[in-house]
Amino acid sequence: MTLPPLAVALGDPAGVGPEIVAKAWAARQTAGLQPFFAVGEPRAIERVWKGPVARITDPSSVATLFPDALPILVVDHGGEVVPGRPDIEGARCAIEALELAVGLARSGAASGLVTAPVSKVELYRIGFTHPGQTEFVAERCGISKNNAVMMLAGPTLRVVPITTHIPFGDVPAALTVELILAKARATARGLTRNFGIARPRLAFAGLNPHAGESGAIGREEIEIIEPAIATLVDEGLDATGPFAADGMFHPRARAGYDAAMCMYHDQGLIPLKALHFDEGVNITLGLPIVRTSPDHGTAFGIAGTDSAEPGAMIAAIRLAGEAAARRARA
Amino acid sequence: MTLPPLAVALGDPAGVGPEIVAKAWAARQTAGLQPFFAVGEPRAIERVWKGPVARITDPSSVATLFPDALPILVVDHGGEVVPGRPDIEGARCAIEALELAVGLARSGAASGLVTAPVSKVELYRIGFTHPGQTEFVAERCGISKNNAVMMLAGPTLRVVPITTHIPFGDVPAALTVELILAKARATARGLTRNFGIARPRLAFAGLNPHAGESGAIGREEIEIIEPAIATLVDEGLDATGPFAADGMFHPRARAGYDAAMCMYHDQGLIPLKALHFDEGVNITLGLPIVRTSPDHGTAFGIAGTDSAEPGAMIAAIRLAGEAAARRARA
Repeated sequence: MTLPPLAVALGDPAGVGPEIVAKAWAARQTAGLQPFFAVGEPRAIERVWKGPVARITDPSSVATLFPDALPILVVDHGGEVVPGRPDIEGARCAIEALELAVGLARSGAASGLVTAPVSKVELYRIGFTHPGQTEFVAERCGISKNNAVMMLAGPTLRVVPITTHIPFGDVPAALTVELILAKARATARGLTRNFGIARPRLAFAGLNPHAGESGAIGREEIEIIEPAIATLVDEGLDATGPFAADGMFHPRARAGYDAAMCMYHDQGLIPLKALHFDEGVNITLGLPIVRTSPDHGTAFGIAGTDSAEPGAMIAAIRLAGEAAARRARA
Repeated sequence: MTLPPLAVALGDPAGVGPEIVAKAWAARQTAGLQPFFAVGEPRAIERVWKGPVARITDPSSVATLFPDALPILVVDHGGEVVPGRPDIEGARCAIEALELAVGLARSGAASGLVTAPVSKVELYRIGFTHPGQTEFVAERCGISKNNAVMMLAGPTLRVVPITTHIPFGDVPAALTVELILAKARATARGLTRNFGIARPRLAFAGLNPHAGESGAIGREEIEIIEPAIATLVDEGLDATGPFAADGMFHPRARAGYDAAMCMYHDQGLIPLKALHFDEGVNITLGLPIVRTSPDHGTAFGIAGTDSAEPGAMIAAIRLAGEAAARRARA
């Protein structure tokens, strides 16, 4: 069975998105990528890349065009795109492209969604109210934010930050048994559906240094994390911990689990990026569609200089293709 | 000039300390270690190791004995040492050995101090009131705890946690401009004295995700960390940041600084142990003496099974020797 192509939203047209998507297409054969099409402003690509582009109006033509040109479903920017100079038109174009791509993935016309980076600063200027693309996509899919899980996946490590983009000082109050349970259940299901892991092993980090040393350095382990793990074990999940976070990320420790369940953003993102800086893929679990993105930002500072590394975008497209194929077989 | 030997306090006699010190002695030639002597209960070593031990009463005999036997300055345990079974006598023995070794380092009879792991649980039972050996040693040296700096050093990364063993939720209140300044100044001086770095580069992490995104996700960067950095720069130090912590630890980023100044324990220890789990050395900066230790615990679970890895102890002894030699030349 041939799967529909993947939809790749170009993100901010003035960021590195257009360049890395074009470079990913150029690497399609060596990287073994399944057919995809870009969604966004073709001129954003043409400004930064000399390869062949094919404007399309419908994903059904992608299979035929993909070997010879990068297919792109046009979302008009309106003004002129200048790499490295984000503007309001670009933010509108990015959101329109994202919305269109989500719709195609939900309808089945695309087998999955890959998103290039957007600028939150620009999006906030046009009234965007979500913390990021993940929450926007979740809402468009009718999934509450506690049930949509941001997982960062690299070649030897997957991490799930249970709380994400909130101030450090707000983390203890945000951590509840209910939140941990919701994130853990969605993670376990997502590892099975998207990664083909029949019985996922979830290892939970503690919040405090040394996981609290039995309450001597903080009590969240005893009052929140341990009860949540006990409930998950009762439900039949392979959930272990809480472990001292600083002992969880060396090679021997990483071999013991399929996902590290982290209590806050940097607890998961620090080791992931220390080990896999140019290869990290953000995959949203818990959605009815496949959604991935490279784990980096718009990098306006290097946009248009032909120096953006496409590795993370290539990894994001490959993982979306693999997850879509697994879901289609299930 | 020949330096005096290093003093190596054996730590808890029922932990892996005795075994890894003995194994370090066995590796003295291949690892290029300078002469050292153990301080503790010789029977703790003899229970777990078959090599030659030489009981001494004075460090002056170490130079002659060291090539052929592990010299040990005897601190009597009193009872029987059983590997993996810590007891009160062992805790007393560990502290007595530590105190003796500190004294020898302060007097100059030893050129530096290396400490094997102790069990805080056991120490608390005999009325020990310090969070760890570092604070005990600092007090014995007359240095306040804000001026004693715990640095973790691996082959490609050095980190300084500015707050250490306190609950996660207490970190924001503990972070002050004064604390950051004290730790940073001691770190810069320590990098020069112990590592020979003439103009140390200190890179500061933010506290919040993405270093707070200009105040959108927390304000400690704006209110505390940035003012501290500005003061340090005014003083002529090479201080940069605050940076998003998750972008500080990949190879290109690490090449840009000599020490990562981290706001809390796990922010520094997670990347250090992810990258250098068996090689991390804890070095205390800001003291009148050289002091290092391996960055791991007593590991009672494997004590006596001849399976403890001596890598971190060897690295701790080597670094103490190098730092002592540098200080002697200065």
